[in-house]
This record gives sequence, structure tokens and C-alpha cells, in this order.
Amino acid sequence: MTIDLNCDMGESFGRYSIGNDKVIMPLISSCNIACGYHGGDPKVIIDTIKMAQKHNVKIGAHPSYPDLQGFGRRRMFIPSDDLMAIIQYQISVIDKLSNIYSEGLHHVKVHGALYNHAYDDEGVARAIVQAMMPWKESTILYAQYGSVLARIAKEEGLRVMIEGFVDRRYCDDLNLMPRSQPSAVHTSIVDMIDQVLDIVNKNQIITPMGYQKINVQTICIHGDHPQAVEIVKKLTTALRNEGVAIN
Amino acid sequence: MTIDLNCDMGESFGRYSIGNDKVIMPLISSCNIACGYHGGDPKVIIDTIKMAQKHNVKIGAHPSYPDLQGFGRRRMFIPSDDLMAIIQYQISVIDKLSNIYSEGLHHVKVHGALYNHAYDDEGVARAIVQAMMPWKESTILYAQYGSVLARIAKEEGLRVMIEGFVDRRYCDDLNLMPRSQPSAVHTSIVDMIDQVLDIVNKNQIITPMGYQKINVQTICIHGDHPQAVEIVKKLTTALRNEGVAIN
Amino acid sequence: MTIDLNCDMGESFGRYSIGNDKVIMPLISSCNIACGYHGGDPKVIIDTIKMAQKHNVKIGAHPSYPDLQGFGRRRMFIPSDDLMAIIQYQISVIDKLSNIYSEGLHHVKVHGALYNHAYDDEGVARAIVQAMMPWKESTILYAQYGSVLARIAKEEGLRVMIEGFVDRRYCDDLNLMPRSQPSAVHTSIVDMIDQVLDIVNKNQIITPMGYQKINVQTICIHGDHPQAVEIVKKLTTALRNEGVAIN
Amino acid sequence: MTIDLNCDMGESFGRYSIGNDKVIMPLISSCNIACGYHGGDPKVIIDTIKMAQKHNVKIGAHPSYPDLQGFGRRRMFIPSDDLMAIIQYQISVIDKLSNIYSEGLHHVKVHGALYNHAYDDEGVARAIVQAMMPWKESTILYAQYGSVLARIAKEEGLRVMIEGFVDRRYCDDLNLMPRSQPSAVHTSIVDMIDQVLDIVNKNQIITPMGYQKINVQTICIHGDHPQAVEIVKKLTTALRNEGVAIN
Repeated sequence: MTIDLNCDMGESFGRYSIGNDKVIMPLISSCNIACGYHGGDPKVIIDTIKMAQKHNVKIGAHPSYPDLQGFGRRRMFIPSDDLMAIIQYQISVIDKLSNIYSEGLHHVKVHGALYNHAYDDEGVARAIVQAMMPWKESTILYAQYGSVLARIAKEEGLRVMIEGFVDRRYCDDLNLMPRSQPSAVHTSIVDMIDQVLDIVNKNQIITPMGYQKINVQTICIHGDHPQAVEIVKKLTTALRNEGVAIN
Repeated sequence: MTIDLNCDMGESFGRYSIGNDKVIMPLISSCNIACGYHGGDPKVIIDTIKMAQKHNVKIGAHPSYPDLQGFGRRRMFIPSDDLMAIIQYQISVIDKLSNIYSEGLHHVKVHGALYNHAYDDEGVARAIVQAMMPWKESTILYAQYGSVLARIAKEEGLRVMIEGFVDRRYCDDLNLMPRSQPSAVHTSIVDMIDQVLDIVNKNQIITPMGYQKINVQTICIHGDHPQAVEIVKKLTTALRNEGVAIN
Repeated sequence: MTIDLNCDMGESFGRYSIGNDKVIMPLISSCNIACGYHGGDPKVIIDTIKMAQKHNVKIGAHPSYPDLQGFGRRRMFIPSDDLMAIIQYQISVIDKLSNIYSEGLHHVKVHGALYNHAYDDEGVARAIVQAMMPWKESTILYAQYGSVLARIAKEEGLRVMIEGFVDRRYCDDLNLMPRSQPSAVHTSIVDMIDQVLDIVNKNQIITPMGYQKINVQTICIHGDHPQAVEIVKKLTTALRNEGVAIN
Repeated sequence: MTIDLNCDMGESFGRYSIGNDKVIMPLISSCNIACGYHGGDPKVIIDTIKMAQKHNVKIGAHPSYPDLQGFGRRRMFIPSDDLMAIIQYQISVIDKLSNIYSEGLHHVKVHGALYNHAYDDEGVARAIVQAMMPWKESTILYAQYGSVLARIAKEEGLRVMIEGFVDRRYCDDLNLMPRSQPSAVHTSIVDMIDQVLDIVNKNQIITPMGYQKINVQTICIHGDHPQAVEIVKKLTTALRNEGVAIN
């Protein structure tokens, strides 16, 4: 039994530091490296790739809307050909630098508002898929369960890994519970661990209606969660105790 | 007899347009594509690579100090490891995108203040050379005659092509005449053409003292010169009439 | 009879030049100066204020979404308090600099995607109105006919001038005809002039159904229209011939 | 007996947080607010002004080279008229916003590499002084002891307050000891406090040669020093115990 644990990394910028990269990197199996558009700068990117390589962590590009001031969390409406180019630029950077400093690019996961936008916007999803076409044979797209992005990517022949979340509750239709709802986010680390173990061991997840079948290949950890370090430590310990390889 | 003609390209940004790329691209043999740090944006970069490929123009990366507001023309003092990363980031983008959309990266030429800084600053020159090391076998560095950059690059085993200028006069020591001097810049297109023909045909250049031997493998055309289009048209016609291949 | 002619100005950035500021400035009565967020840099702003002052042109701030790459033309979704601050920052710059170099700030007109967003989005409109509250007594807001922004601004006690367009056709409900329709934009300068004369002389405008009453206090000229210079020259000549003061 | 304690504030940007503003603000008498060019964004600026006002802390503008990636710590060479405009833009923002949200602008202190550059570069110093001319009557310039900036500012009629440092040692000529020297920085908080008390009580400072006379009107605290909070707490306690008002 194995599961991939992924976490966003390399989002610091210049003198600004964010996240807990040094503590979390050794505990995960894949990382999503900011490309300089919502966070990350050239030195941070290279240092993060080296750190990932040192800990045998698979490297992904983490492209974003071009919005450092908003950390890529503000939805933007960008013409398709511009958006395609913006994403391809970012993937290219991480691809080439990870070829120089590590074993190369493993996956792509889009960031923040772009990730959410691609959940149900076909135009945005198609721009992402088109941007990834040059990496069709070599690189995996991480995408949310039930997203338009996942559907179109598969239709176009991309390899897709479906992503689940440690700290978010799910609706009966297997969407994430909207943050507007009081119970949207797990507050108990025990509940988070249970959710991941259910996914990994039983391909199921609890929703208001009860257990639902779900198929998830990678679990996202939010590195900027106030308890991120504790969560990832307890989760990885629990997984190992259950005989689940993190890989 | 052949000579390489190079020109900076793809320096437009968003709605801002600069240069005469469409007219000049078919007339030159290699281009230096802005990487987004002093000019260029992702769509401009991709479109410029496609245009170069269409006209069989060799593609170079044109990395700069990170200074869009100053178009990379303001000298900055950046710690070596940051500067190395900044340059490597930019080369990586053009390398990968030119692999996707054309036959790949041919050369690197640094831009503006960074180019001038590397003329005599060893720290800056070493950062550039170090940034290029992953491309040591495949990619050529364009560098100014007599520059510290050219010297160190050769010492470190990089392939170097020495660059001469169409529109600048030279001192007796084969440095460019400083712009502070009234005769620093050729105003007559005839003089410019003569200078290039002397370089190509006779490996010589005129300076205040008379003709000096010089060895130049590529000639730089300034695409934003007010008469750029006329200069490049007349120069390429003159070269062809002399039986010089532009390549 | 008088009408205000306004035009966006000062949108150049660093070495990038855009618009026809020097030709158009002497012909208009008010200008909207970019604040550095979609265009404009500090030197451009100061030079533009001086030029406006020299030609007795009233000065407005032209705040935008923070998006130089997209020239402020890409819709962004920004939390209200951030958006309020972003707009207030930009107005503050132009206010203070126009106090230093001219007779001070006359009006505010928001730019591009922010202008369009405020047409029917109440949250965006409220953020703009709140940003302008410190200038409630002194400064006028230019807003589109029929916009939510115009309505809320008036409700909150701001002084509002309603803006009409030279080169756009109007629907029967006095909205601008969407650019998706083939006849959205006037191609004949004669038609443009007729539209403005109708607005100024008869408070009316032609729509598919026929003439409609409309009340407009300022006419917007697009300085980056390919024929901008010709349009503004012919329009101002026509207005003077009709005895209409541009003011 | 009174002394002004100043600290850089408002240098956070978007989701990036830096400094200890909330803890330090109540303990100081004046603050230097980043203007968005090396740090700070519109919301951070407004929130910082409000916080300063709440704690009766005098407000200064803290203009920088335009270099967010380098946090304003990388020396740039910018033509004088551009540099003047860049500084004036930044002062204008803080001036106007502090008029809206507080009692207005008290002083200007330039940041980082610009501060150091103005220590001995006359061109840079003159650009700063020229930028401040519109505030000649109302606003004070904080400048380093012995700097070209202090000299030129006084010659041109600006009001100047000379700044001393808590945590830096001084040479016999009253320059800061270069950071290249092992003893450049005080490591003992007791030594820091002694240095400030000597300055305040006796107008003297210790250098390798012994005590030297020095005249300092404001003391700079580095808010991003690893022990910043402890230093400022102990220092303000010590000053109060000595009967020195912080003002």
C-alpha cells in the first residue's frame, strides 16, 4: 500500500519567508515548486529543487496567475492564449532547472485561484491542458476529484493523478465543502488522519451522508497551515504504523 | 565567407510594443530573445520563438537584471549566487520553450547593464559563466571583444563568439568609444556598412590610429535604433553583393 | 454650450511608449493619468502632470487593477478592503503630485477592467466609492451612464460626471453595444462627431430604436485608437465650429 | 531629556509578513513606513498608518529603490531625474494617506541600499534632497551622521535629524564600523543600551580611540533584528528609568 503526499514548496520570495519547507520536505514524497509568479524567486527555486533532490522528493511545477501581491489567490480573467503561455513559461522554468539540479520534472499542479478556477471553468482548464501538451508523455497533472480540469486532461491523453485533501471535509457529491460552511475544515488532527487512512486503505471518504467511494492518488498537505508541521509529522507516523509507504 | 548577424528580439511586454521584430527577423541569422526580466512576456516569447523558427533564425536567450521599469539598463549590484540563479532562470525559460517550438537554444547573450557590467567586473562575469555551465556543451556565449566575460568564459571552457557592433566606433584598444564622445556612434549608414565589411573581409576595424586587427564572429544590430530597418536592409544587401553569407 | 473632453494619459512605462500624449493633450480639457499600476511610472506621471498644467488640462487619477502585464484590462477579483486600499494608494499619488506640479486633482476615473467591473458589480463599485470618500468635497468621479458605480457614488454624496464615448455605439437601454456585435464601434469619424454633437447640443443619442434622451457631462476619447489624433482634431474643430467650448 | 526612537514598519507584502510591527509600534516614537517599492502594499500601508496613529507614533515615508525582489538592499544606478521621481512618488503616497488616516507626514527616511548610497554619493543625495523640496517647510529628513545626504540637505535648507544606531559600533571618524569587521555589530544588549544612554545623556559615543562627541536626534531600531523585541523593550525600560522621554 502506498500513497503520495504532496506539499507546496519554494513560495518564499527575496527576504520574505513563508512555509516550513525544511521541516516538511523530508516527510513528503512530492512537492509543488512555485515558479516566480505568485511566490518563489530564482534562488529559492534552485535551492528548493536541490532540497527536494536530497530527500528523494519528486518535483512538480506549481504555476499560478501572475499575481505576487495576491499570492496567486485572486481570480483573474486572462485570454486563453496568454494564459496558456503564462503557464507554459512557468512549467518550462521548473522543468529545465529540475533537469539541471535533480532527476527532472515529475508533475504539474496549478496554484491557488487558478486551481479553483479550473475546477469548473472549461476555458481555463483547456489552457492548462494545452500548456502541458509538450510534457504529455513525461509529466503527470495533479487535479482535483470531479474537476473539469481532470476530465479534460484525461480526454486529451494527459496522465492525471487525482488529489485529495487532508484538512478539508467533503460534500456528498465529493466536492470540497465550501469554506463558507462552519464544518468545511477539519480542526482535529485525528479526523484528518482518519480521512487519509480511509482514502488509502478503503478508497472511501466520509461525507454528511456516510461513506462514499473515492479514488485518490495523492494527498495534499497545506504547508502554511498553522499546525502544518504537527499534521505532517503525525500523519506520516500514522501511515507508517499502518504499513503504508509514502511514495 | 559568412558572418552571423544578431539582433535583440521579443522585448515587447503586454500591450507595450517595442522594436521592429517582424521586419528585421527575416534579415538576420540569430536573435536574442528577452526572457521577461527587462522585457518580454510569456506570449511574446513564444511568438518570437515561432517567428525565429519560421525564418531559420538561431535562437538565443537574452537574460537581464530584474528591472522592467528600467528595461535592464540600470546597473544593479546583486549577490553572486542570486545573480547566477536569476540568469539561469532566464536561460532555462528560453531553452525549454525553444525546444518546444523550434530547434532549441543556440546561444546566450546578456542584456543591457548586465552586458556592460560584465565587460570589466569579474564577479558579474563569473556569475554569468557559472549560470551557463549546464549548457557548456551545447550553447554559445556571445561576448564583447576584450571583455572580462569573454576571457573567463573561455578559461572555463565555454564556447564563445566575439561580438562586434554595426553602429559604434572603436578606440585604439578595440574598446567601444564611450558614448560621452561626440563621435562614439556612426551616423552614416555607409560607414556602418564599411565597418562590417572590413570586419568580415579583412578581420580589421578602423580606429583613430588607423586599421587594427580584430576577430569578430557575430555582428550586433540594434533593433530599436531609429533607422534600424534601413540599416539592416542596406547592410544585408551589401553583404550579399559582396558574396558574404549571413549565417 | 460647453463639454468636457477627457483622455487617458501617462500610460507609458520606462522605455515603453504608448498613446499620443503630446499631440492630444493641447486639444482636450481633462486627462486621466495612469498611476503606475497598469501603466505609468513616477517620471512619466510627473511629466504628464506638468504637460497637463501647461495646457490648462484638468487632472484626474486613473487607478487600475494591479496588472502591468495585462495593462489593467484583465478582470481580477480582489477582497474589498484590499481593493479599496489599492485604489486609494493610486489616487493619493496623483493627488499629491498634482498638488506639487499643478493646481491639483480634479477628478478620478477608474481604468479598464476595473471600469467595466464597476458597471454592474456592487462590491467593486462600493470599494471605489469608499476609496474616494476622503476626496468627497473636492474631487469628481467620472462614471459610465447607467452604471452601478454612478448610482452608488451619487447615493453616497460624491460628485459624479457621466461619461459618454466618441467611438462606441449605444443600445436602446443606453448601455454600450457589446464589442461582440459587428456594429459596436463607429468606424466613420463623421458618425463619431455626429454622436458627440447630438449629446452636447440635444442631450440625445442614436440607438437602434432611434434617438434617446441621455445626459452626459464628459466625453471620453481613446488615445490609443489607431486614428486617435485625427479623431480628436476633427472633433475639436467641429465642436468649435458649432460654438461649443471644450472645458 | 528626550530622544526619538524610530523603526522601519509596514514592510510586509501581500501574504508575506516581516518584522514585529504590533509589538514594537507601542514602544517607539516615530516609524518609517515602506511605500510599496521594497515592501509594503496599499493595505499594509493604510493599516500601519492607523496603527501608528493609535499609538501616537510619528509617521515617516521610507522610500526605496524599486526592487521588491531584493527588498531594496541592492544598489541600483538610476538617472537622477528618474530617481527623484521615484522617491517623490513614494513620499507622496505616504504623505497623502497619512493625512487621511492620521495627523500627517512627519519625516522621510530613505531605505536600505538607497540610504547607504546617499552616505557618500552626491548625485544620489541631491536626488533625494530635490525630491523632498516640496516638503521643505513641513517635513524632516532623517540622515546618517557624517553623510553627504545630511550635508546637502542642510545646505538646501531642509530640516535634518541625525540618526544613530542601537546595534552598530562606530569608528573613530564616527562612521559605522564596516560589517566586514568582526566587532561591527553589538551582540550584548547591555552594550547597546549603554551606547544609547551615552548618546542621549552625554552626546558622546565610544569608538576604538575612546569617547567622541556626537550629536544625534533619533535612534534607529532594526525591527527585523532577531532580538528586536527584547532590545526595544529593554532599551525603552532603561531610558524611562533614566528619566529620558521617548518622543
